[in-house]
Amino acid sequence: MPKKNHDTEKYYRLAIRYSRFYGGKISVVPNVPVRSLKDFSVWYTPGVAAVSKAIERNSDLSFELTSRWNTIAIVTDGTRVLGLGNVGPQAAMPVMEGKALMFKYLGGVNAVPITLGVHDQNKIFDTVKALEPSFGGFNLEDIESPKCFFLLDSLRGKLSVPVWHDDQQGTAGATLAGLFGALKLTGRDVGQTRVVFFGAGASNIATARVLMAAGFKAGNIILVDKKGTLHPEREDLDELELHNPWKYELALKTNADRVEGGLDAALKGADALVAAAGPGPDKFPKGCISAMNSDSIVFTLANPVPEIWPWEAKGAGARIVATGRSDFPNQVNNSLIFPAMFRGALDARASRITDEMIVAASTELARYAAKNGLSEDHILPDMSEWDVYPAVAAVVAARAVEQHVAKRRMSKAWFHRRADFIIKESRSTLATLVKNKLIRMPP
Amino acid sequence: MPKKNHDTEKYYRLAIRYSRFYGGKISVVPNVPVRSLKDFSVWYTPGVAAVSKAIERNSDLSFELTSRWNTIAIVTDGTRVLGLGNVGPQAAMPVMEGKALMFKYLGGVNAVPITLGVHDQNKIFDTVKALEPSFGGFNLEDIESPKCFFLLDSLRGKLSVPVWHDDQQGTAGATLAGLFGALKLTGRDVGQTRVVFFGAGASNIATARVLMAAGFKAGNIILVDKKGTLHPEREDLDELELHNPWKYELALKTNADRVEGGLDAALKGADALVAAAGPGPDKFPKGCISAMNSDSIVFTLANPVPEIWPWEAKGAGARIVATGRSDFPNQVNNSLIFPAMFRGALDARASRITDEMIVAASTELARYAAKNGLSEDHILPDMSEWDVYPAVAAVVAARAVEQHVAKRRMSKAWFHRRADFIIKESRSTLATLVKNKLIRMPP
Repeated sequence: MPKKNHDTEKYYRLAIRYSRFYGGKISVVPNVPVRSLKDFSVWYTPGVAAVSKAIERNSDLSFELTSRWNTIAIVTDGTRVLGLGNVGPQAAMPVMEGKALMFKYLGGVNAVPITLGVHDQNKIFDTVKALEPSFGGFNLEDIESPKCFFLLDSLRGKLSVPVWHDDQQGTAGATLAGLFGALKLTGRDVGQTRVVFFGAGASNIATARVLMAAGFKAGNIILVDKKGTLHPEREDLDELELHNPWKYELALKTNADRVEGGLDAALKGADALVAAAGPGPDKFPKGCISAMNSDSIVFTLANPVPEIWPWEAKGAGARIVATGRSDFPNQVNNSLIFPAMFRGALDARASRITDEMIVAASTELARYAAKNGLSEDHILPDMSEWDVYPAVAAVVAARAVEQHVAKRRMSKAWFHRRADFIIKESRSTLATLVKNKLIRMPP
Repeated sequence: MPKKNHDTEKYYRLAIRYSRFYGGKISVVPNVPVRSLKDFSVWYTPGVAAVSKAIERNSDLSFELTSRWNTIAIVTDGTRVLGLGNVGPQAAMPVMEGKALMFKYLGGVNAVPITLGVHDQNKIFDTVKALEPSFGGFNLEDIESPKCFFLLDSLRGKLSVPVWHDDQQGTAGATLAGLFGALKLTGRDVGQTRVVFFGAGASNIATARVLMAAGFKAGNIILVDKKGTLHPEREDLDELELHNPWKYELALKTNADRVEGGLDAALKGADALVAAAGPGPDKFPKGCISAMNSDSIVFTLANPVPEIWPWEAKGAGARIVATGRSDFPNQVNNSLIFPAMFRGALDARASRITDEMIVAASTELARYAAKNGLSEDHILPDMSEWDVYPAVAAVVAARAVEQHVAKRRMSKAWFHRRADFIIKESRSTLATLVKNKLIRMPP
């Protein structure tokens, strides 16, 4: 049986104490030497004028002569932070900094947290559009639904650099990878597996869409929200069509059997449950997991506290349980996806990130987990399996090349070597700063 | 006689070559150790939720629990980059990165370059306002006049963190410091010195205003633009009142003798010339410097090429010549001001940067230069005199406390120690990365 709730309290206390000690998790440092004052004649005026003029003639050179090739913004308005809800932009910053830390440590990507003081979707759109020339890509984060759908769709259409909404695509990619592993372990086939989604927010809607792109049958999928199962005759469908066309579309396509009722009705005969319904630990009706097929798969993904504690899900009959937490086994962890996704997209100079690039990443993650032996507690690689990041980056970049969305058209092996080099160097940098006590150990 | 033009060509070539080699001058790195995967339970979920909740309860804690206390944005729309003009946001990036490099290396400040794809002043205002929760301050940079006046004034009024326009205030502060040194060396008094400004753009208008705050008499100042000297009867005054109230105000106050004509008329009997009129080297009418008083002072500040080469100004009779270039003596160098100004303002948690804080910084710079011996080639500290930065930061922070714009009310000595520690650590970080070949030497 895994760890108890009091561990969470311990992490809360440490997080406050360490945040006070370090005053932030990231820092901006030089990437060039300063041997003497003379160097500023190159890094700044007069020399820098030549670099500006070169980019003025050909703006594409901003990806070769500045940090833009490897720098993205993490953008949030703070309206749906972790499972905490609308805590506002200042309170979103510690989470965005954590994300930036992982972008660099796991993917070698420079990520700048941008926590916006505007909430209107058109104003967020305008702000991100205005920021486009500064960055090589945008990671949208913790923005409430359905605003996040509008922003992802509209920005992807208008920007010439990749736009990603991690709560949609990152979660979808990690969930798909986990399902691939769990299906293999329980001898299931993608085309026959019945999946129930509990919660119909950003991540579950996106995951349902990506699952279909990966071969799951729409009819075998049921989404359940606070009003019960989603189906074409639900009385709020007109309203959905108007305000949440993404959810509306799924209402029409999924649930071929037209199951009505709540989560317990939906789970009868289901193979897998993907819950993203807000912090638990007691979100499920009693007994509903026992109604699933044998060898059932339960992904309980709410943060910081899952909808059900893993030991309780197992007690109710689940064979494989995954959560969103790093301190439990089988973390369905966006951080297996987003650092490598951007590493690959940036290295290929991809103009966008396609669903096929996500499926490629999930497939590679599952392949990697299987190589090291699948088990009930290991359906996914964990974050300490470093080699997985450059491997995923390479398949993502190679898929971008195949799909003609890449400006840099190199081989998978070339992308793999490059990603490996950049990520190793990023980890060496941290190790060196720690070793030289420029980053001190916590008190 | 100092260096020749072909040096500039050399710096241009090196800047292009090195920019290609390094692909950018700054990078985002972790500020915390990652000892094992467990640490992510503190840096990210579940632990981080407690930090977010604490800030949600008291948003002021974002200055203690995140990097915001030491992170600013460098914002430009690329409309007036160096002396190059409107090169656009992508082409502005190498300059902003150079600035960020100096912010960190000289002031220990994390600075994020933001190059905006919008040019309308209200849209820039909205964007910066939207970015406010992300940053502890804003450095506006290379934005054309009079838009930059509007932005500085309006943002200072609306934001609760310091907003600075370096082309106005940084240049004003450095120029004032240089004039203090030159006046002392030539035995002049602030109240009697006659100063001519050539060019009436952002930097000269701001410098004229700061000079008056420092005790120079408005009547002893003459501004000259393309239409000649500024005075209350000039025929474009109605238009100025409408479109450039900042310049209009100076037209009413300055030039007590109502000198009419061009630069040559204005310079007759002048003690000091401050030129910021766009790249030279042949911007002045022949013979005009010879018409100045003896022991004249010529600040020729255009970048990358000064309005007149220093050796030519000296040949025409100037005793003291200063430029904006790092490869000539007496660099009137914003970088003597802005890193320490933000170090001091951030350490004091100042809500704004007042003119008095600028005058305090200039006074300290001049005091520091005098301590090490004033001469024709040393009216200002140069950037290698490291101790000057924490000293300036301390007087700035102390002045903020005196003026009741500081949230952290400590002694000058305390601010001095803190700034000294932060800046030394910043330089150690770079030295360590270079020593460990994580930053390589250029090819």
